[in-house]
Amino acid sequence: MDELKSRIRKDGTVINSEILKVDRFLNHQIDPQLMKAIGKAFAIHFQNAGITKVLTIESSGIAPALMTGLEMNVPVLFARKKKSLTINEDSLTTDVYSFTKKVHNTVLLEKDTIIKEDHVLIIDDFLANGEAALGLTRLVELAGAAVSGIGIVIEKSFQQGRGRLDRAGYAVYSLARIASLNDHHVQFLD
Amino acid sequence: MDELKSRIRKDGTVINSEILKVDRFLNHQIDPQLMKAIGKAFAIHFQNAGITKVLTIESSGIAPALMTGLEMNVPVLFARKKKSLTINEDSLTTDVYSFTKKVHNTVLLEKDTIIKEDHVLIIDDFLANGEAALGLTRLVELAGAAVSGIGIVIEKSFQQGRGRLDRAGYAVYSLARIASLNDHHVQFLD
Repeated sequence: MDELKSRIRKDGTVINSEILKVDRFLNHQIDPQLMKAIGKAFAIHFQNAGITKVLTIESSGIAPALMTGLEMNVPVLFARKKKSLTINEDSLTTDVYSFTKKVHNTVLLEKDTIIKEDHVLIIDDFLANGEAALGLTRLVELAGAAVSGIGIVIEKSFQQGRGRLDRAGYAVYSLARIASLNDHHVQFLD
Repeated sequence: MDELKSRIRKDGTVINSEILKVDRFLNHQIDPQLMKAIGKAFAIHFQNAGITKVLTIESSGIAPALMTGLEMNVPVLFARKKKSLTINEDSLTTDVYSFTKKVHNTVLLEKDTIIKEDHVLIIDDFLANGEAALGLTRLVELAGAAVSGIGIVIEKSFQQGRGRLDRAGYAVYSLARIASLNDHHVQFLD
């Protein structure tokens, strides 16, 4: 997606060879028009996948997931990272490790929000090691539903996540694929 | 906002006289079309307030804030509840107590995301004791900018938040005002 790549070049900051900071348009400050274009791109790519729900994980996945759900006219769900008093005990949970924050999170989804008949599109802002995306696939599968696609805004292709998702057989579509962040430079894959 | 009130009546669950669960359309599963209507309602109400940025707090505020920013064509910011490794030390922070989760959170915003000249519209999903909204006003004021309005999706008018914000002189606009949750019944204010 050219608009996204230009924006990464313009407003992204390479912190080191593993971390790209995009908090000026994606995960702290959000550009709503760019998010709308991102939602449209996912909706077009997965238009024939029979998607009935979009699933993401709080917080940075919510904006692109919401815009995708708006375009596809399906509900959006966000998995939560810890228990709130207003979420009942009847939840599906899985464990996800965050390499960025160096913490294990219990990620949870209320049991009846995804049903067996659902075809779920998983959306996330970043794909690095694949921990979050794989955690979301486990929640969908615990609900007995099908993962019908995984849409990623920015894929760090030099990390292992993409390979893990591909090997597991998921249909992955990333809007920007980054081959390397070496020398403080963003090198895209294509 | 009639569409929202109908939805609260239809899909909200009164847990007790203080807690209304709306996780089927607002803060776990999100209805994107309803969020779009909510964004439009805030945009219309605050159209002459000269808003330059929308500010919310992760996670449940992101969806209504994003749709408001989309309608108003301004950037959306979400304050974070704890430090991530990719957020630098140069942050504005304040302390916010969550009565629902019974925890104190450090809420932070990167320093140069809001500038002195900004007119900020604060958006949040719920107004109860006003802790989160007042925390966001402190962040805006630490940045030297003006709080030009506060938009709330659901106000629990029987709690003290609305009064605290009114007394502090903020222009508050709530889409649904709840007078009482007694007897497992949602009683709206008007």
